[in-house]
Amino acid sequence: MTQTAAIIGGGVIGGGWLARFLLNGWNVNLFDPDPEAERKIAAVLENARHALPMLYDVALPAEGTLTVCTTIEQAVSGVDWVQESVPERLDLKHKVFADIVAHAPADAVIGSSTSGFKPSELQQGLDRPDAVVVTHPFNPVYLLPLIELVPSPANPVSVIERAKEILTSLGMFPLHVRREIDAHIADRFLEAVWREGLWLIKDGIATTQEIDDAIRYGFGLRWAQMGLFETYRIAGGEEGMAHFIAQFGPCLQWPWTKLMDVPELTDELIAQIADQSDAQSGHLSIRQLERLRDNNLIAMLRALKGEDAAAGALINAHEATIRPALPGAIDGAMTTIERVIPTDWTDYNGHMNESRYGQVFSDAADIVMQTVGADADYIAAGLSYFTVDIQIKFLAETHAGARVNVQSYVLVGEGKKMRLFHQMFGEDGTLMATGEQMLIHVSLETRRACDPRADVLAKLEAIAAAHSALPDPRGV
Amino acid sequence: MTQTAAIIGGGVIGGGWLARFLLNGWNVNLFDPDPEAERKIAAVLENARHALPMLYDVALPAEGTLTVCTTIEQAVSGVDWVQESVPERLDLKHKVFADIVAHAPADAVIGSSTSGFKPSELQQGLDRPDAVVVTHPFNPVYLLPLIELVPSPANPVSVIERAKEILTSLGMFPLHVRREIDAHIADRFLEAVWREGLWLIKDGIATTQEIDDAIRYGFGLRWAQMGLFETYRIAGGEEGMAHFIAQFGPCLQWPWTKLMDVPELTDELIAQIADQSDAQSGHLSIRQLERLRDNNLIAMLRALKGEDAAAGALINAHEATIRPALPGAIDGAMTTIERVIPTDWTDYNGHMNESRYGQVFSDAADIVMQTVGADADYIAAGLSYFTVDIQIKFLAETHAGARVNVQSYVLVGEGKKMRLFHQMFGEDGTLMATGEQMLIHVSLETRRACDPRADVLAKLEAIAAAHSALPDPRGV
Repeated sequence: MTQTAAIIGGGVIGGGWLARFLLNGWNVNLFDPDPEAERKIAAVLENARHALPMLYDVALPAEGTLTVCTTIEQAVSGVDWVQESVPERLDLKHKVFADIVAHAPADAVIGSSTSGFKPSELQQGLDRPDAVVVTHPFNPVYLLPLIELVPSPANPVSVIERAKEILTSLGMFPLHVRREIDAHIADRFLEAVWREGLWLIKDGIATTQEIDDAIRYGFGLRWAQMGLFETYRIAGGEEGMAHFIAQFGPCLQWPWTKLMDVPELTDELIAQIADQSDAQSGHLSIRQLERLRDNNLIAMLRALKGEDAAAGALINAHEATIRPALPGAIDGAMTTIERVIPTDWTDYNGHMNESRYGQVFSDAADIVMQTVGADADYIAAGLSYFTVDIQIKFLAETHAGARVNVQSYVLVGEGKKMRLFHQMFGEDGTLMATGEQMLIHVSLETRRACDPRADVLAKLEAIAAAHSALPDPRGV
Repeated sequence: MTQTAAIIGGGVIGGGWLARFLLNGWNVNLFDPDPEAERKIAAVLENARHALPMLYDVALPAEGTLTVCTTIEQAVSGVDWVQESVPERLDLKHKVFADIVAHAPADAVIGSSTSGFKPSELQQGLDRPDAVVVTHPFNPVYLLPLIELVPSPANPVSVIERAKEILTSLGMFPLHVRREIDAHIADRFLEAVWREGLWLIKDGIATTQEIDDAIRYGFGLRWAQMGLFETYRIAGGEEGMAHFIAQFGPCLQWPWTKLMDVPELTDELIAQIADQSDAQSGHLSIRQLERLRDNNLIAMLRALKGEDAAAGALINAHEATIRPALPGAIDGAMTTIERVIPTDWTDYNGHMNESRYGQVFSDAADIVMQTVGADADYIAAGLSYFTVDIQIKFLAETHAGARVNVQSYVLVGEGKKMRLFHQMFGEDGTLMATGEQMLIHVSLETRRACDPRADVLAKLEAIAAAHSALPDPRGV
């Protein structure tokens, strides 16, 4: 049954949560007293609909239904998850949580997006403190997987486990913060960096642009894939982490950071930062900056997905749970691909680059292979199919964000040979490209042609026989 | 004339510099009294030769010559750049710099890799303080572009400008730090984060693994492409940076960071960190971790290159300076591609995925288009060629790191039609694949076929006529 989430507070963070749930097939109830809320949500949702489906090489589930509610009671009734993202004031949060726990089902997880408050602070005075945990996300919530999941001693293990399970099913990474502290983990780092940044600007050492360059051309690239300690482990070399600390530990005593003081946020300092930021990025609207950021994140996350590393490994794990079953019936064309075209597949002509049609057909051939039993285990055992030629006809342009599907036919399936024909269609049924592809079965040890395993060949022959009864899809 | 760099000190950092110079066609003189130096350099160089060429879609220049020297005098004589990367002790650096300035040419830039010392400290007591600047790199130096270029008031503008010019020619980004301070800019951030990390471990809040996850699944991804302030500018929304600071400024006064104190690096704390790091990454050798890191960085940098954003824009700018001239003579096959196959182009079969052959041929067609005058300006003016079909034959496998070239022929060039034939060869002359590709000239406004500009058609016809006199490269 479709699950339902209640989103209480629909700013940039609440909107990001809403998009995560909705695009993963959940129904969503929204409560936000702000008269601008629906407009704000629509903007976040537009970004998310553009971006999130591009992380995956399969289609996401059908979107759930969004219901705008006028009371918290209405929003939280009967739901499986409640996510609070109201402004960062403890008195306000207490009031909202009292209303939520009074009306939400007993088994609903109630998460707070708070950046700074500890769960025990949020739970004070509530009837059901055990249902409320911190689930702190990072902007853009629809693309970044990290969620700091912070329970207090009042939360039973069952709530923590249920929260982990649901967050993982949304493609997120629940980082279980085992001891609650102010600002959890990540924001302590962000705060330390923010403070240093303010000092550098106040002291006239660097501008916002120079600080951003110092981050994105250097350690930012390291941290996007390995973090701090694994990076330093490498720096320590074969002698290891203890060696690294012995070598660099003394720096902590050097005057390398503005440890002892906090810069005062005078009007002058605020104006200085705002002016520098305008000079750096003022030629772009926030909407344009969001789109640039999201396209960069999509491209980098897809790059990490290709390596099955860091956040890319999370996407692959999530994708495995939403991948459709292999084609069952073989008496007609097999639907081998259903997916969205990501931004990084387009070229200077503004459309999908021709080589990516080849990638879609290559992926389609993988599904045919899996369907006949030539799957990951089969390949690990040293057998596979290699493509020896392909002819692609490009019939219509396609663009980033387009949803396409591929229908595949087995033209020949005998001995070492597998000849496939793929048709790529747009959502409206337009035929966009065809690919006729010849594959040969090989031993991965000798890299030479060899016969397939008997059961694989039998399945392939059965499909080829069924498809030979169909009109020739090539139309010749 | 080939330029020469002297590398003084050949650890991980010196070795990274050495690789940057050598792989960009410079000769390199190495001085390092460590008997293990050559072995260590060889390890870094092996990583760099694997990784750096993969960032580019054209081949790097031919490698320079590496000369191992037995004295600083020998190493620095007649060179254009000296890079000092000896251990972080001021007395040692003073001794080394005295020797360097005594023997290096008057116009050589002398850079120090120091993480912490100010250039004025390094210059103390030197005969030619004006020649010495800080050029602080980030590991892995052969992949990360950031160099903090820190002069003191003793350095004339000419030295700073020459340093910038050379660093840029190596594909690096010289960040001019306009006022010298301890630890420059980036390491102040790294130090602040390191200190917070130590507290989190000491207080038992998080392990090294949890801290790394908190970074790489969240803000690390943001910082790899935008840095701190541009990210927060977006968070401020349409109301801008001043609004963001007004909203989040007060956090600075909250107990969110371990401001006032530095954790003592007791043996116990060091052992705790080392144990956690072993649990996190101990199943992989440092060499394996380096390779994972480098493959992730290559994939992410190539992803940003595709977006022409952040560090990817730097690579594109550098690539433009090393891109070979368009084919001149048209009486034989045109060499359209010379490049290395990057790691992110390979698939589960361990070889380059079939779709990337299509990409190589698509790139080859771009060079043919540019050769006939259908270049970026032409496309910007609304005209282009679209591929309508391609037939690719896969004759031999190719792998990451392989250097390939493409020879292209114009089979037909008349009216709206351009039919090309491409042959992809390995370095040893093996024919690895062929592509026969039909393109049609289009208006980018109507997205329909139209005639090319007269000069483009004339050039295309001339090449087609010349190639028609050759034996048919398809061998039919």
